[in-house]
Amino acid sequence: MSERVDVELHRADVAELLAELADRPTEEVSIHRDALGRVLAHDVVAPGPLPRFRNSQMDGFAVRAADVASAAPGAPVTLPVAGDVAAAPGEPAPLEPGTAVRIMTGAPVPDGADAVIPVEDTDHVTFNGAGDTPATKVEVARRRAAGEFVREPGSDVAAGDVVLRAGTVLAPHHVAAAAACGIARLTVLVPVSVAVVSTGSELVPPDGEPGPGQIWDANGPALSAAVRAAGGRVGLRLTVPDDPETVRVGLERAAALCDLVLTTGGVSQGAYEVVKDALPEVTFRSVAMQPGGPQGFGRIAGTPVLAFPGNPVSAQVSFVVFLRDVLRRAGGLPPVERVRAVLDDAVVSPAGKRQLLRGRWVHDAGAQPRVAVVGGPGSHLVASMAAADVLIDVPAAATTLEPGAEVAAWPL
Amino acid sequence: MSERVDVELHRADVAELLAELADRPTEEVSIHRDALGRVLAHDVVAPGPLPRFRNSQMDGFAVRAADVASAAPGAPVTLPVAGDVAAAPGEPAPLEPGTAVRIMTGAPVPDGADAVIPVEDTDHVTFNGAGDTPATKVEVARRRAAGEFVREPGSDVAAGDVVLRAGTVLAPHHVAAAAACGIARLTVLVPVSVAVVSTGSELVPPDGEPGPGQIWDANGPALSAAVRAAGGRVGLRLTVPDDPETVRVGLERAAALCDLVLTTGGVSQGAYEVVKDALPEVTFRSVAMQPGGPQGFGRIAGTPVLAFPGNPVSAQVSFVVFLRDVLRRAGGLPPVERVRAVLDDAVVSPAGKRQLLRGRWVHDAGAQPRVAVVGGPGSHLVASMAAADVLIDVPAAATTLEPGAEVAAWPL
Repeated sequence: MSERVDVELHRADVAELLAELADRPTEEVSIHRDALGRVLAHDVVAPGPLPRFRNSQMDGFAVRAADVASAAPGAPVTLPVAGDVAAAPGEPAPLEPGTAVRIMTGAPVPDGADAVIPVEDTDHVTFNGAGDTPATKVEVARRRAAGEFVREPGSDVAAGDVVLRAGTVLAPHHVAAAAACGIARLTVLVPVSVAVVSTGSELVPPDGEPGPGQIWDANGPALSAAVRAAGGRVGLRLTVPDDPETVRVGLERAAALCDLVLTTGGVSQGAYEVVKDALPEVTFRSVAMQPGGPQGFGRIAGTPVLAFPGNPVSAQVSFVVFLRDVLRRAGGLPPVERVRAVLDDAVVSPAGKRQLLRGRWVHDAGAQPRVAVVGGPGSHLVASMAAADVLIDVPAAATTLEPGAEVAAWPL
Repeated sequence: MSERVDVELHRADVAELLAELADRPTEEVSIHRDALGRVLAHDVVAPGPLPRFRNSQMDGFAVRAADVASAAPGAPVTLPVAGDVAAAPGEPAPLEPGTAVRIMTGAPVPDGADAVIPVEDTDHVTFNGAGDTPATKVEVARRRAAGEFVREPGSDVAAGDVVLRAGTVLAPHHVAAAAACGIARLTVLVPVSVAVVSTGSELVPPDGEPGPGQIWDANGPALSAAVRAAGGRVGLRLTVPDDPETVRVGLERAAALCDLVLTTGGVSQGAYEVVKDALPEVTFRSVAMQPGGPQGFGRIAGTPVLAFPGNPVSAQVSFVVFLRDVLRRAGGLPPVERVRAVLDDAVVSPAGKRQLLRGRWVHDAGAQPRVAVVGGPGSHLVASMAAADVLIDVPAAATTLEPGAEVAAWPL
């Protein structure tokens, strides 16, 4: 292990290495299935006006405003009703001067009509259940200006208007806007494709039966889930034994298929550090943090590679500290903000190493968020990691922190 | 329209109608694919201990602590090295007294050894790249007590320990814990299955070509996305014309297939209100809110049904106010908390109706969140809904609100 570097330096180096991932290709998705949570690649422009045609804002009677200009409470104007216009396919007949048509919300306003009198302002009071009872005349008790309760074409959206902005993370109300404009497919960013490679001859899959000396592989499933939770896509999953040639072949295949290769294991101080042996072109260093100190970064066959330590908690902490936000930003998602929080417990920490302790939010009515330590600092403690919902960031310079100290907290 | 009721009364009635949805069936999912974001149905118990076997916490030398009891800096104890133990399948040979074996992190500690001397405390300093150079002897410069750097079986998790609690919304670090315990499948809640039924003869799908009087259906895609975003599953999507018999047949089919039937359109004051006509057993009422006043709730063939108005913005606001949190809670997800926020704009509001205005968060460094109004109050304004990220809740009693007023805000 040659270099020993600060956490922020390694974060910056990783961000720089992976800057190219932000140059995303695009793909089309259906608004019906795959759009939710995806990130718009371009502004979405309305192909036509919304509403598409002049329509009624109310249940009522379409009239010429001039024909009811004298209407007032107690002095109604009576008009013959020429028919009904529902919200249904077809074009209504033009309105003859001196007549009214009964019209439903959303129905096209006939040519010749320029205002809608809400049903409450007439002697009909309500239409409810009146579909089978054609009206023959209506008493209008209130005048309305030309244009009232008439929605003009384009009054919501004009053709060419930007309806959704590039970079929008698509939520249901964005899907609604696209659908309302007749846009059934949207162009979104292709997620970053990550190869998740677990190394270690001792690994068996979680549904396998481990023999002596074997353990279940937690890193493959955990980092695959973490990649997906950060908006990425798992392009390849491999588990490879501690044989440098096999690892090399696997990593070259991963590099050819994916935007980023992520390995776990084989980067520490032992005699059999297979990722180090297989990747002579990659920089390995000791980052001054616990857990997660041994780290590698570089390229294989032109593709960026990050090498995390094999301990499951170290690997997960490495993901949160070095990769999560880079992956989110590259895919157009906002980073997970670090939170200033008040520590509930005393913490003893080795000098010169930044500690990332497993913690839990303490929910109370206080003004500032509080965090409590879960379990011990031992990097093998999967159980305390599972019980945590935050990482507590103890600065490298600190050797003790008292309850009440302010710390940075990384939400899990 | 008979009744006219307060928003909170209708919210309570809907929550009571849908209380049965919280009684979820369960299903098994793979940790590799479908577990992320799902909700655990039961506590998950470790089937065995973790670590599974006694293993080394460090790269170093496994010894009998008694053999190095006199070791000290400047006065090392030299032991012959009997071989290597890597983290690999198989059981190492027992350690002969008076000897050491080179051992890697995670490798099984041989019977007879009871401590590990870290490589830094020996004359080997580091193992890196030393895999091909078998060690023949080691100088140990520091004594270690029995048990040091040896992880005992069950020291992380004992067999029978609860590793994950029922109700956990599965995140990557939960997947990690399950995988580490050799649990490849998890039992989770089955999402609430919702039938999304758009009514209206004027509707064409978003990839269709509307003729005169026709519009694209925004509600089907939008409410389907909203159901999924709230943890539900869309069990059926229907669009039905304004014919009560066709609607009735569709709704009965929907009721037979799904846990909840959700309709849009046909609940207002017009002459052709097809959902009202098709569902005589359902209660229709006017809720004192804008948009989204006309609402229906009840049962068809024993299955709960909610009837939302057909205007797209009204339908979306109805979902947020009446259904989103009920659906989330039923599926085991936390509700979306309403936030107290400070209003940036003056608002004029009709008396007696609670307004849900489209708004945007104003991001600044202030202590309290702020919201600004987007677009107008017109319920047809899909464009302003798309530009919003929050609904601003103006109480029914308010007719004007000044900038600086505190309001409730519903995040979208």
